[in-house]
Amino acid sequence: MAAPRFDVLGIGNAIFDILAHVDDDFVVNEKLAKGSMRLVDADEIARLYGDLGQVVRISGGSAGNTVAGVASLTGKAAFIGKVAGDEFGEAYRHDMRGVGVAFDTSALKDGAPTASCLVLVTPDGERTMSTFLGACQALTPDDVDPAMVADAEVTFLEGYLWDPEQAKEAFRKAADIAHQNGRKVALSLSDTFCVDRFRAEFLDLIKTGTVDIVFANEHELRALYETADFDTAVAALRQDAKLAAVTMGAEGSLTVTREETHHVRAASVERIVDLTGAGDLYAGGFLFGLARGFALPECATIGGLAAGEVIQHLGARPEVKLVDLVRQNGFEI
Amino acid sequence: MAAPRFDVLGIGNAIFDILAHVDDDFVVNEKLAKGSMRLVDADEIARLYGDLGQVVRISGGSAGNTVAGVASLTGKAAFIGKVAGDEFGEAYRHDMRGVGVAFDTSALKDGAPTASCLVLVTPDGERTMSTFLGACQALTPDDVDPAMVADAEVTFLEGYLWDPEQAKEAFRKAADIAHQNGRKVALSLSDTFCVDRFRAEFLDLIKTGTVDIVFANEHELRALYETADFDTAVAALRQDAKLAAVTMGAEGSLTVTREETHHVRAASVERIVDLTGAGDLYAGGFLFGLARGFALPECATIGGLAAGEVIQHLGARPEVKLVDLVRQNGFEI
Repeated sequence: MAAPRFDVLGIGNAIFDILAHVDDDFVVNEKLAKGSMRLVDADEIARLYGDLGQVVRISGGSAGNTVAGVASLTGKAAFIGKVAGDEFGEAYRHDMRGVGVAFDTSALKDGAPTASCLVLVTPDGERTMSTFLGACQALTPDDVDPAMVADAEVTFLEGYLWDPEQAKEAFRKAADIAHQNGRKVALSLSDTFCVDRFRAEFLDLIKTGTVDIVFANEHELRALYETADFDTAVAALRQDAKLAAVTMGAEGSLTVTREETHHVRAASVERIVDLTGAGDLYAGGFLFGLARGFALPECATIGGLAAGEVIQHLGARPEVKLVDLVRQNGFEI
Repeated sequence: MAAPRFDVLGIGNAIFDILAHVDDDFVVNEKLAKGSMRLVDADEIARLYGDLGQVVRISGGSAGNTVAGVASLTGKAAFIGKVAGDEFGEAYRHDMRGVGVAFDTSALKDGAPTASCLVLVTPDGERTMSTFLGACQALTPDDVDPAMVADAEVTFLEGYLWDPEQAKEAFRKAADIAHQNGRKVALSLSDTFCVDRFRAEFLDLIKTGTVDIVFANEHELRALYETADFDTAVAALRQDAKLAAVTMGAEGSLTVTREETHHVRAASVERIVDLTGAGDLYAGGFLFGLARGFALPECATIGGLAAGEVIQHLGARPEVKLVDLVRQNGFEI
């Protein structure tokens, strides 16, 4: 088998983040579930946007953040996602290509605008998101370039892709092509409410091997197995998944296979500013490590370092070259 | 005279900032004068933008940043500046109004896009800017709402306004209206190259009293008086200006009147991330202090606190409510 052209191909919702610092009362008054993502329509996002003061605009989207992280580590990365032909769509494409991610999905014409997500960041660094999917609703299986999937060592799919109408078909098409070409498929569970919406389907993907690598945080994992007990959930995951990485915030992460479980500590962080993208960047670092042949605990460490960088500033895209950070921590890349 | 409706009205170039961390080599290879602002055309900004990796998009513009700072301090603020009717123009308007700044200047139709500035931030926090003026070129005296100027205690004008074709006429119109109504006019010298371009005119504005309050940093001040000696420049300024505030980076600032000079220390800062907007926010804090009747050294302290906040993160708009910061430092507002 030829060496893959890409270490990681991300498929996800191409979303522009609009981030604002707010106090806890703002989140409470809006009756939002802190730390989660909700879907909203155009009217609701306009209303909420109108209530925000100064904001910062940065490309986002879970899988998009992940592949931006892979590229920042010098990994070869690609992205499939739907933007509109508007200014934020152009900006999104710039940011992808600017960090070296291949991104050729055609822009949506004459339809909804580029997706946006209002990210409310509270003083504790937690982020609460309201997403208007916009052009992402128009992602179809036709947008999945078979050659790109065949050429990617890992195709990374975000659980959020289950939300837009036809994206899950794109997801399944990509998984099929990946496996036909001897490649691997990774899935992030994305969000506890997302898990609640699609629990049976996510479990089926994992149990049937449609997905080879699972990323989840502790809350999503407990939601998946509908248990309050973390160890019970990990034990169930160990049976169902070939390989999984479970993040636990400041407690670090677990790598889980049928044979063994490793606990890896979190990177030390001076000051948490904004948790947006922590899980996405962890996945990016982990998958980059896998592609470079590192052992699982080392992959988890690289993931932790990438996540540690992104939570120290606003937004889910690295502000520094992650490869420098990882080298400073003793990795030879 | 009735109490003014606005503490500060800012008139300036309405610019969307596109910020990126780069290393020093990038600035050297681009042959840019580090720490300065240069004007570029549409082709050049597109070329440079294409060479940038991940960027962050935040409303900017010198006078815009200043009035955003005034509003963040609970001051009553207004803004006059020209955006286009595009998405970034809409975003700019949102951010102004979102923090409580009155901003009603009509958007340019069927013309150039909203202005953008590529801000290259080097590891030392210095920023080097390339500005495409776009729609700002279309600001005319007609955009100056006489009632707004008449109702503002201080009209703050950025030196950069001398660059667009007709903006200086808007500037002069505003200054006339302000003085006819017993209000004050403030001018920021903006940039050393800007001073070089318009030295004679700036000196004339100051000496004739068209401008009542001058803001400059030490470099701009030396450029204004064409001297390498800071004390010589301050002495000249003392003769020419009724009131001036001169910023000196980590050395704090001076308030200068014919009668007395005060040196005020800079706010303590944990980590300088990005100096963009430091001078603008200093001016915002200073003018807010004046409007609230504080003594000059206290105005300088408030300015220093506002500047100290904005240099600890990317972008020239405050990420926290500056009024909270200033209250924490003992000011009763």
